[in-house]
Amino acid sequence: MKKLWGGRFTKSAEEWVDEFGASISFDQELVQEDLQGSIAHVTMLSANGIISEEDAEKIKSGLQTLQEKAANEEIEYSVKLEDIHLNLESALTELVGPVGGKLHTARSRNDQVATDMHLYLKKQVQTIIMLVEELQNALLTQAEANVETVMPGYTHLQRAQPISFAHHLMAYFWMLDRDKQRYQESLKRINISPLGAGALAGTTFPIDRYQTAELLGFEGIYENSLDAVSDRDFILEFLSSSSTLMMHLSRLSEELILWSSQEFQFIELDDSFATGSSIMPQKKNPDMAELIRGKTGRVYGNLMGMLTVLKGLPLAYNKDMQEDKEGMFDTVKTVVGSLKIFVGMIETMKVKTTQMEKATKNDFSNATELADYLSSKGVPFREAHEIVGKLVLTCVQKGCFLMDLTLEEYRAVNDLFEADIYKVLDPYTAVERRNSAGGTGFDQVRIAIDKAKAKLNKEEHA
Amino acid sequence: MKKLWGGRFTKSAEEWVDEFGASISFDQELVQEDLQGSIAHVTMLSANGIISEEDAEKIKSGLQTLQEKAANEEIEYSVKLEDIHLNLESALTELVGPVGGKLHTARSRNDQVATDMHLYLKKQVQTIIMLVEELQNALLTQAEANVETVMPGYTHLQRAQPISFAHHLMAYFWMLDRDKQRYQESLKRINISPLGAGALAGTTFPIDRYQTAELLGFEGIYENSLDAVSDRDFILEFLSSSSTLMMHLSRLSEELILWSSQEFQFIELDDSFATGSSIMPQKKNPDMAELIRGKTGRVYGNLMGMLTVLKGLPLAYNKDMQEDKEGMFDTVKTVVGSLKIFVGMIETMKVKTTQMEKATKNDFSNATELADYLSSKGVPFREAHEIVGKLVLTCVQKGCFLMDLTLEEYRAVNDLFEADIYKVLDPYTAVERRNSAGGTGFDQVRIAIDKAKAKLNKEEHA
Amino acid sequence: MKKLWGGRFTKSAEEWVDEFGASISFDQELVQEDLQGSIAHVTMLSANGIISEEDAEKIKSGLQTLQEKAANEEIEYSVKLEDIHLNLESALTELVGPVGGKLHTARSRNDQVATDMHLYLKKQVQTIIMLVEELQNALLTQAEANVETVMPGYTHLQRAQPISFAHHLMAYFWMLDRDKQRYQESLKRINISPLGAGALAGTTFPIDRYQTAELLGFEGIYENSLDAVSDRDFILEFLSSSSTLMMHLSRLSEELILWSSQEFQFIELDDSFATGSSIMPQKKNPDMAELIRGKTGRVYGNLMGMLTVLKGLPLAYNKDMQEDKEGMFDTVKTVVGSLKIFVGMIETMKVKTTQMEKATKNDFSNATELADYLSSKGVPFREAHEIVGKLVLTCVQKGCFLMDLTLEEYRAVNDLFEADIYKVLDPYTAVERRNSAGGTGFDQVRIAIDKAKAKLNKEEHA
Amino acid sequence: MKKLWGGRFTKSAEEWVDEFGASISFDQELVQEDLQGSIAHVTMLSANGIISEEDAEKIKSGLQTLQEKAANEEIEYSVKLEDIHLNLESALTELVGPVGGKLHTARSRNDQVATDMHLYLKKQVQTIIMLVEELQNALLTQAEANVETVMPGYTHLQRAQPISFAHHLMAYFWMLDRDKQRYQESLKRINISPLGAGALAGTTFPIDRYQTAELLGFEGIYENSLDAVSDRDFILEFLSSSSTLMMHLSRLSEELILWSSQEFQFIELDDSFATGSSIMPQKKNPDMAELIRGKTGRVYGNLMGMLTVLKGLPLAYNKDMQEDKEGMFDTVKTVVGSLKIFVGMIETMKVKTTQMEKATKNDFSNATELADYLSSKGVPFREAHEIVGKLVLTCVQKGCFLMDLTLEEYRAVNDLFEADIYKVLDPYTAVERRNSAGGTGFDQVRIAIDKAKAKLNKEEHA
Repeated sequence: MKKLWGGRFTKSAEEWVDEFGASISFDQELVQEDLQGSIAHVTMLSANGIISEEDAEKIKSGLQTLQEKAANEEIEYSVKLEDIHLNLESALTELVGPVGGKLHTARSRNDQVATDMHLYLKKQVQTIIMLVEELQNALLTQAEANVETVMPGYTHLQRAQPISFAHHLMAYFWMLDRDKQRYQESLKRINISPLGAGALAGTTFPIDRYQTAELLGFEGIYENSLDAVSDRDFILEFLSSSSTLMMHLSRLSEELILWSSQEFQFIELDDSFATGSSIMPQKKNPDMAELIRGKTGRVYGNLMGMLTVLKGLPLAYNKDMQEDKEGMFDTVKTVVGSLKIFVGMIETMKVKTTQMEKATKNDFSNATELADYLSSKGVPFREAHEIVGKLVLTCVQKGCFLMDLTLEEYRAVNDLFEADIYKVLDPYTAVERRNSAGGTGFDQVRIAIDKAKAKLNKEEHA
Repeated sequence: MKKLWGGRFTKSAEEWVDEFGASISFDQELVQEDLQGSIAHVTMLSANGIISEEDAEKIKSGLQTLQEKAANEEIEYSVKLEDIHLNLESALTELVGPVGGKLHTARSRNDQVATDMHLYLKKQVQTIIMLVEELQNALLTQAEANVETVMPGYTHLQRAQPISFAHHLMAYFWMLDRDKQRYQESLKRINISPLGAGALAGTTFPIDRYQTAELLGFEGIYENSLDAVSDRDFILEFLSSSSTLMMHLSRLSEELILWSSQEFQFIELDDSFATGSSIMPQKKNPDMAELIRGKTGRVYGNLMGMLTVLKGLPLAYNKDMQEDKEGMFDTVKTVVGSLKIFVGMIETMKVKTTQMEKATKNDFSNATELADYLSSKGVPFREAHEIVGKLVLTCVQKGCFLMDLTLEEYRAVNDLFEADIYKVLDPYTAVERRNSAGGTGFDQVRIAIDKAKAKLNKEEHA
Repeated sequence: MKKLWGGRFTKSAEEWVDEFGASISFDQELVQEDLQGSIAHVTMLSANGIISEEDAEKIKSGLQTLQEKAANEEIEYSVKLEDIHLNLESALTELVGPVGGKLHTARSRNDQVATDMHLYLKKQVQTIIMLVEELQNALLTQAEANVETVMPGYTHLQRAQPISFAHHLMAYFWMLDRDKQRYQESLKRINISPLGAGALAGTTFPIDRYQTAELLGFEGIYENSLDAVSDRDFILEFLSSSSTLMMHLSRLSEELILWSSQEFQFIELDDSFATGSSIMPQKKNPDMAELIRGKTGRVYGNLMGMLTVLKGLPLAYNKDMQEDKEGMFDTVKTVVGSLKIFVGMIETMKVKTTQMEKATKNDFSNATELADYLSSKGVPFREAHEIVGKLVLTCVQKGCFLMDLTLEEYRAVNDLFEADIYKVLDPYTAVERRNSAGGTGFDQVRIAIDKAKAKLNKEEHA
Repeated sequence: MKKLWGGRFTKSAEEWVDEFGASISFDQELVQEDLQGSIAHVTMLSANGIISEEDAEKIKSGLQTLQEKAANEEIEYSVKLEDIHLNLESALTELVGPVGGKLHTARSRNDQVATDMHLYLKKQVQTIIMLVEELQNALLTQAEANVETVMPGYTHLQRAQPISFAHHLMAYFWMLDRDKQRYQESLKRINISPLGAGALAGTTFPIDRYQTAELLGFEGIYENSLDAVSDRDFILEFLSSSSTLMMHLSRLSEELILWSSQEFQFIELDDSFATGSSIMPQKKNPDMAELIRGKTGRVYGNLMGMLTVLKGLPLAYNKDMQEDKEGMFDTVKTVVGSLKIFVGMIETMKVKTTQMEKATKNDFSNATELADYLSSKGVPFREAHEIVGKLVLTCVQKGCFLMDLTLEEYRAVNDLFEADIYKVLDPYTAVERRNSAGGTGFDQVRIAIDKAKAKLNKEEHA
């Protein structure tokens, strides 16, 4: 078959140029969206008298046949036909004859491909939102089981203050909540229809863009045809939201990897999410967490790639924009896969509560308690801090911990110290008492879990 | 003065390490936000009986003195005191004596700095939204004056179909509208208070986080203390929104540069926004448009930088996060400056309507009209396209345009052509007739401008 | 078949985790390199008495069979077997029995995969260097044909000074020359052998790493086993060099696109490298140039992705590093394809010399000549510049060019002007006289082309 | 003072546009390079009779005065004068009168600024190379002291095989060695002169570019004037090399942070490179390592920024390119600072050898030894691996390590096991015996250190 735009040309393009320029190897991912869009378009064309009902019915039945074939992977694609649009048009014409050519009335590939991508991304973002909620649920379940599991809290990867393990997990619940918000908000800008914008300027045919928008489930239409075909913001926004999500997953991955090490031993990942070594039989590697941490890079890269493509492009469509798809598909695949894995990893993760609690007792992470103790007795905080610093130094030099100093030793430094300090120094008490709003105190954590659960349930059923 | 955290240490840090680690050279930008946060904190401390009213009053009056001093740039900052927080604390203690040390009760630098940045970014994003609206207004004004200014519309930088210049400008109105939406939505996540999260785990003091949030104009509080001090999503989101905004400005910049060239000559930028050459006296360079196109790079870079910083960081605060500020400040400065310049550049831009219209007559951008003409007479679009392709080739070989072919020549190719084709081929008609919703037809453009104006007015007064 | 590292585990991994973690879908690209590496390894094992000659022969013949099968695409890969290494090991054992298991003696997948990638990238970089030279040749050929083709030279996309078109093309010759240098230098770091580094620490077997290095054509070995398996610098360096190359191609692409526009009309790209429009029959879009400009984004993205992956990774191998391959493969494919297309595009590009020369006569790009004229007669350059600026303004107001002012008008401004200024103002003369080393003067350009040719010929035969 | 290029313009630019467009706030960093370049230029002008010797002497003496003033920070810069070049030219004219205007003969700001940056970067890269060597020296010193310090070697952050701590440190020696190579190779492309390229096309004056190149210590000149003023590859290459260097430092930083944690306790950083907490007196945070890990982001960002700026820019100079400086300056400052800090950090780092060695005894990282043991007795490696996997599982279930199983238990599994296995299992032996080239065996490590030292000494004195 000859090229559809070949009338103007005197020379046929060589095969390797075709291959380099063709998008069919990847845009076949959009086959169902493309057919769906075409059905809406032809329905509208006939409803508005632009083509006859008879022609419309023929075309529609052809398109429906193609939907089935596509579902069964029975369509063969050809690089000669460049992209999914021309491949399907050719397949349609083969099925229904020259009338198939009328499908392209009042439509250009520029608005067609934009429509496909809006349809595609809408579906994918909805899936991703569901998976984020599943992961939030998994975190909630683990949190509920670990409210009173005490572990060291870290800053600078140094033990800082003891915290509830549930509290730590719930920090990720809220990160994911923001991720979800961003995805949801972006749907406003994804769920609008570019169809009918034509090549760039609209069309002279009396089309009804609101009708196709409604048929396709869009909430509105693009107000400007040039914008409709040139806009790839919705992809950028998806890549940005996904970069932040992956960043969050990379942070939790890092922690799972640390916690699985022989040095921490705070958790054990289920065998399903770990692998062994071809040379070292004792290894149990947190492969999935590492891989997801690594995959953060490819999503960042996809974002950077798309930002670069769009920089400085004049309106309206330029071929550069064909580069919008692979990074989007790859990001969808990466995010969906990472979330699925993470749900399983969190659900099956074994928490070594004894190890965690043991860790809180062999360090100075209760030092803040001492400073707060003095401070609440009227010592300016900065002075209290100084005093405790010296006590810590004494311990380090003696090779002991704060619990091990005698009351005499305490009182020698400052006579506001009394016998109740040993209670204050206990990690469990330390956590329990940190009961400011949003703090790690057990009561606060329980309240926070309930709040989170209520919020999540409401949203899942929204 | 000795380091506040020096009690634990036996050796003093060398000066150059201090300098490398200190943030005071840039975080002094946050001086007013830091003082504002401290006033709210001390007010709350005394309201909840954590420190005495008397102490609170002393501290507050010291902080107010510092506010004035800061406004008059009378505070001297020292690298020895690391950051804005310790510099101000030291200045406070100098003013009010040791009682100043009580300000730090139930607060850590981790929640303090996060509070400062939330306050800062909220203010800046609000300013940016206003500037985006100003630029939308400037575009609207130029659009209103140019509804019937006909110019070539481009795809692939090839003339495609004639369009209204107003329609082209309005495409940018809608891009900016999405930018504005994104900034506005991000405010939800910026306008919440981390204050009271402490170092990472909350505090044992009976603080009231809702009170400080209200005093600072925040709409809510972070639900999890670990999240509150570790979260930099709000900065990432700002950098993402700004990258997309700059990408839009880079596209319009590219067009302004093209249009200012001797080859296009569609516009003339005002002298205020152009510069000359040190060696070529005839040059009038669209410097500001080029510079803004270039500055897109630094904003992308700031986004990538921040994404990199956060990748794989375990909770909670790590010193890496000190790197969050400079890229944010630089992006604010770049975006604010670029928008200001752009408002002026668009407002003062001289549109060369005659040049634009002349351009639409010397090419084949009316070819689609012919294809649509045939198509509306029942020829399947693909076939019509083929026919017109051949007519164009004929013209190219003869060295003329479609307008120049005789009716006989048209009818020789297809007898559906009639005398009305010359009207159809006229660029003005071509634009006028493209009246589908969101299209370039003059009526549509007028409707679109009115809609946009109404929307903008409503939002500006919201 | 059960997982090779399964002895340690009590539970089998689910299929979807397998798929997410497996690399076989993309690392099968390395099949020949992997077999080549194994043959060298087994040869060395037997030469050093680590396995018997008989065993080695069996294994080697099996590997050779697999080489043929791979060439004929007869190997079936399984996700269950994770990666190319385990797939091939399994295929080998099927062919030669349990003796196949001895191939893995004194080798780990960590040094094996690093070896494969070094072998792969060496071959690809050599190919890329050849293609860069082909493009340099294509530029040279066009330059030779266009030494005296005069065109406007631009700064700020404003016409600045007339130049030789050959001179413009030769600027790209030198950019490519630097690209080539960078690729060549990187070969030093690609062409060294990690084989024998084991999992991370070397091995207790008496292997000979120099022997395998020699068998595989490497110039040396990694001096440190931990470094050998952790290093991905050579990929980063490849991605950096490729980003710069693509940046260069994006600049030339931009120019080809501008020059192909109706506004410039400086060149016509061959039909093979342009495409039409599905809706606008007159269009001839410079698709390939646009696509390559766009593909710059994906290569930048691949670089950013890999930089992100490696940031902050502790030694030695981490699963994150599995992410090193797809970006590398994609970059190779993009760079190789872009260079091939570019060679064809430049070779077949039709230069519209008349258009170019016409352009130089209708502007003020000869203004520098006037300033230089005065300057060479002793007027300080800054003053000369000022005088010419005023003359240009006079012309603009009168609607003429510098050539059109009378000698009287010139002398009225400054009496150093004499009749020879008209010669000086001629664009051809202007180009001809700019004969400083590396300048656009025709003699200089001819010298530069000869130099470049000599350099290229020498290098191609090196 | 009026704008130098103002003759052409009817309206003066507003102050805020000036500020946005001016580069003087940052390019004053180049003051000495700019003066140095001007002195060379004026020397050449008079040597070639383009200006008189007398004029040249006046100008030169003015420039020398400015060199002194600049050294004493006595020059005041004005935003009105845009950049360093015009600021200095104005200062010169003030000193020497109108003759100062002759300095600009046969030179443009385009070649001038490129010259400045080449001079600047050459000096900085040489400094960085020296600092890299200092860090290599620091690593060598620590390595020499720790050849027989046994520690766990990790893959996937799981203990894999015991290694020598010196061997681990030496892996970084070789990474830095590649960094150094890349910087050195880049000097070839930095150390060439763009001076004399003019605005874009060379000049009609009989200048001698080789003379100025020699005066400025450049090894050659750019062969093409357009390329000379448009090229920013040398900055990109610097940013790429620096990104890779920072990536290496981020990996070592991550390890220092891990090793400093309470969980690892492998090292203690000197107090000079650690800081305390404002709220937690016991903290000793590895701040400098964290900060450097974080600063990796800004260097990556600078690279991405510059790549974005250059993408798709037509030749020759465009104002976008003004964005080349700040990222370069910032990267120099970051890299120089990070290297200085790192030298100190490594030199003063206290190695806790007992902790490290203890760690190697409480895990299964000697399991490979068992597999190699069986393998060397003829068991195919895969089978050996399987057997050992089961032994590890037995231990895990019994709560012991491999050392703790009796010979009977070993022989029950496979009768190739003999009494010498206990020696084999000892971590010290395990390290000692891994004596393949580049392996962790003590002999190998000693050889490697000597080699590295010899290489470094040779290069430092080259």
